[in-house]
Amino acid sequence: MRIIIIGSVAAGTSVAAKARRNNLDNEIVIYEKDKDISYSVCGLPYYIGEEYIQREDLSPRNPAWFKKRFDIDIHIEHEVLAIDVSKKELEVKNLQTGVIFYDHYDILVLATGAAPLKPNIEGLDSEHVFCLRNIISADKIKEYIKARQPVSAVIVGSGFIGMEVAENLIKTGIQVAVVEAVEQVMPSYDPEMSLRIKNELQDNQVQVFTGEKVVKINAEERTVVTDKGSVLPGDLVIISTGVKPAVGIAQQAGVELGTTGAIKVNCHMQTSIKDIYAVGDCAESYFLMDGTPCYRPMGSTANKTGRIAGDVITGGSLSFRGILGTGIVKVFNLTCGQTGYTEREAKKAGYDVEVIHNIKPNQTEYFAGSSELVIKAVADRKTEKLLGVQIIGKKGVDKRIDVFATAITFGAKAGDLAHLDLAYAPPFSTTKDPVMYTGMILDNALNRDRKIITFQEFKSNRKKFTVVDVRSNRDFEKGHIEGAINIPLGSLREKSEQLLKNQSIVVHCNKGVTGNAAQNVLINLGFTDVYNLSGGYKEYKTETTF
Amino acid sequence: MRIIIIGSVAAGTSVAAKARRNNLDNEIVIYEKDKDISYSVCGLPYYIGEEYIQREDLSPRNPAWFKKRFDIDIHIEHEVLAIDVSKKELEVKNLQTGVIFYDHYDILVLATGAAPLKPNIEGLDSEHVFCLRNIISADKIKEYIKARQPVSAVIVGSGFIGMEVAENLIKTGIQVAVVEAVEQVMPSYDPEMSLRIKNELQDNQVQVFTGEKVVKINAEERTVVTDKGSVLPGDLVIISTGVKPAVGIAQQAGVELGTTGAIKVNCHMQTSIKDIYAVGDCAESYFLMDGTPCYRPMGSTANKTGRIAGDVITGGSLSFRGILGTGIVKVFNLTCGQTGYTEREAKKAGYDVEVIHNIKPNQTEYFAGSSELVIKAVADRKTEKLLGVQIIGKKGVDKRIDVFATAITFGAKAGDLAHLDLAYAPPFSTTKDPVMYTGMILDNALNRDRKIITFQEFKSNRKKFTVVDVRSNRDFEKGHIEGAINIPLGSLREKSEQLLKNQSIVVHCNKGVTGNAAQNVLINLGFTDVYNLSGGYKEYKTETTF
Repeated sequence: MRIIIIGSVAAGTSVAAKARRNNLDNEIVIYEKDKDISYSVCGLPYYIGEEYIQREDLSPRNPAWFKKRFDIDIHIEHEVLAIDVSKKELEVKNLQTGVIFYDHYDILVLATGAAPLKPNIEGLDSEHVFCLRNIISADKIKEYIKARQPVSAVIVGSGFIGMEVAENLIKTGIQVAVVEAVEQVMPSYDPEMSLRIKNELQDNQVQVFTGEKVVKINAEERTVVTDKGSVLPGDLVIISTGVKPAVGIAQQAGVELGTTGAIKVNCHMQTSIKDIYAVGDCAESYFLMDGTPCYRPMGSTANKTGRIAGDVITGGSLSFRGILGTGIVKVFNLTCGQTGYTEREAKKAGYDVEVIHNIKPNQTEYFAGSSELVIKAVADRKTEKLLGVQIIGKKGVDKRIDVFATAITFGAKAGDLAHLDLAYAPPFSTTKDPVMYTGMILDNALNRDRKIITFQEFKSNRKKFTVVDVRSNRDFEKGHIEGAINIPLGSLREKSEQLLKNQSIVVHCNKGVTGNAAQNVLINLGFTDVYNLSGGYKEYKTETTF
Repeated sequence: MRIIIIGSVAAGTSVAAKARRNNLDNEIVIYEKDKDISYSVCGLPYYIGEEYIQREDLSPRNPAWFKKRFDIDIHIEHEVLAIDVSKKELEVKNLQTGVIFYDHYDILVLATGAAPLKPNIEGLDSEHVFCLRNIISADKIKEYIKARQPVSAVIVGSGFIGMEVAENLIKTGIQVAVVEAVEQVMPSYDPEMSLRIKNELQDNQVQVFTGEKVVKINAEERTVVTDKGSVLPGDLVIISTGVKPAVGIAQQAGVELGTTGAIKVNCHMQTSIKDIYAVGDCAESYFLMDGTPCYRPMGSTANKTGRIAGDVITGGSLSFRGILGTGIVKVFNLTCGQTGYTEREAKKAGYDVEVIHNIKPNQTEYFAGSSELVIKAVADRKTEKLLGVQIIGKKGVDKRIDVFATAITFGAKAGDLAHLDLAYAPPFSTTKDPVMYTGMILDNALNRDRKIITFQEFKSNRKKFTVVDVRSNRDFEKGHIEGAINIPLGSLREKSEQLLKNQSIVVHCNKGVTGNAAQNVLINLGFTDVYNLSGGYKEYKTETTF
């Protein structure tokens, strides 16, 4: 059997390696139109910025290695021009010699990846404008920086790559501005979470322009002009406005696309055409929580889908179970992680959601290096299942995101989290881990009438609520929500007569714990509509200041 | 209703706080025979050694705080002498005044904790011998160190506390020896995993004596003598040979104990006597995997059981789901984590186990600070469920242990792990996380005939096997398993004729990955009994060198 794979970054080489591990006899051939293979796309921003990452680190394997180790033939600089589905034949061009030839496949795997989404900007073709999409483009950026020593850079788009490039350029001493068309940086996060990322960027001398669209890149003056009239110096411009699935050849062959525009596949990575598979960034995925199709190109998913296709092709039965869209990014001193749905996505998907913000130390507070995690969790009120989590903090974010991702994978309900037997010692966590607290807060809201109100919900119904600030008088005097009454928790019981039992009351403390205690007091005293402000005064300050 | 709790460390105060959060009207009273309440036992080793942990950090709350915040009456230095079950009455002694009085309870909660297991050693009562069990004892050790400036210390016992105290004493400049009666340090780990801990101790100038029992502490000469004749200088001696449940008063009242010697409770923390509950270190627990009773006193479990009892007492329905015995300890530069059963425990519990060692970097290797994780995983061959995991490494151990703990909680099978959508970016992990690789290796062994053999199994059947070392000639020449044949992977296919297809063959590389590739080649060529050596040459070296 002759297996041909188009593309040899993460997904394509995973297919090949798995197919070979399962079976020695098949011919396995990969056509790759670029020079580099099996490289780490996720490492590219670090390759640009930090000298200790060598080119060989990113792409440690060459075709000779694959030939020797796995008897896999990788032909680089070979572009597949067309697929003849009826003949099972490919038209291939050797880009070095220009020679065109035909090759027969029994099984074809499309691992054509993604291509940058190029926005409609005047001047995009200037020599100082780059997309970071592969090693070649990273090389070009590095060479440009070395040769021209740019003083300023503009990054267009503020997703993962934009954030990582911003950090890495700042570290090389370049002034950086980030321009993002929507109203927040890192649009995959909920708005109030992304405020923290924006703040971190600004704290590290990155200029941030949100809600502005770049309309023109002026090559001569080396400036970038936005639709709001901002004119930013940009000796170097990096376009990182996302990617789209590279599906040209698939479409031409008549392979069905999904609603997201990526190639539609079943759980065995099979496309609509017999014996044609699709894996990695060109294939559509779906959310594990409910099967909703999605397009989330990620290296981790590419590896997974490649392995599954390689197995199925050789008689195995592995099948894809969907994704959570789990992602993580380092932004200077912050780590930002997310898994599952954001509040916005969950609402859009039709869920009646319970939403909470949980602000807790990542480890025992008396231990050196303790810092704060802000955890936003979204659960489905109907099933009580966790739908998604976003976490921002300095340390321990990756741990909690992975624990949440694992819990969501197994259909965890909010109430399950407090029962987890997680590892505790002072250097690593708190006696009750922040994951457990998150579950407790959600469960109390879902099942014990300890209602949580987000600042946004509060804001949009401000007049309905009496606000009781249960912090100390001193804290209250330093700053408080307009119109709030100050009744410190200790005197709440005696002073509760000031309040009416059927009033809609929002209590809050600094982060939420004392607010919860106050809520307990009022509910136990017979108050009927008491909310604790999600994330307390701290979250209020974040959402009204940054 | 009058709720009385005996004991106010982690579990007792959790009961009280939860009971109050649920209900404002009950009287809640705690009797505590010591002075300190609600303190972090787990922080004590760090309090001894590191100046930046203050006494207030360990015990931030006093009875006045509990009174003000929760209307809970904590009576310190009050010892409960007896329980009269028929009258629901306690005999209580005020240790400050000597006055004895009686108090009536409607609900009684035993949170009496644990007491040090004092081994039978001559000279144990000397003034330079300490147990570290509470803040008072930590104070005494600190005072002793300050006043006498000991040059040498002997730690008897090598569990969590022993390890943490060793590190903290070394950091204050004291010479430390650890003496452990069984043949390994950290007896809760499997022997070959504990070798790495022993090595780390020795690398950090801790003398380690395993398989030696301390028989005498010589107060005058300040020496410690073992049954093997070792005489160790010990100006300071710390006994950390474990704890036993403090069940004296429970027994006297006729409360039933479990097979472990701790108080038997149901999932609502109710004892055999109506209206008496037991929580924390005095109560028996059980393994979540199969319900086997166990005694694993841990702060995290104490908090959990306290919260559950507090809820049930006030009409709630929380119930305990069992533990995994998850634990973590920092030993100098290593982190050691475990969850679920060890190989030894699983075998003892009657499981037919699949065991693998997975050695992988904790994050992308080209990224600064990457280091190696050694993951040992145990699965049940019958159900394919994960039974337990031990991890040792420098970074990222806590994350993986918590992910494994979460997966085991939800009954994960080995094959589920590779499907997890964990967070990947170069600073945090590898494209396939080590957790996923662990699942793949186990699944391949369970379902795809990619058998793994541990070094111990190999050693005990050495003559049965032909050993094929698939590393390079150069690596082979540097050192190899006696009797091994060297056939580098690249030439394995052509040279496989040297081997007989029905021979029992053990292949190995350095850590396991290339060994797996070699195993695939041989199996695909028709070899029928091929094993990959678990953890490869690296594990062999560890088990034969340290």
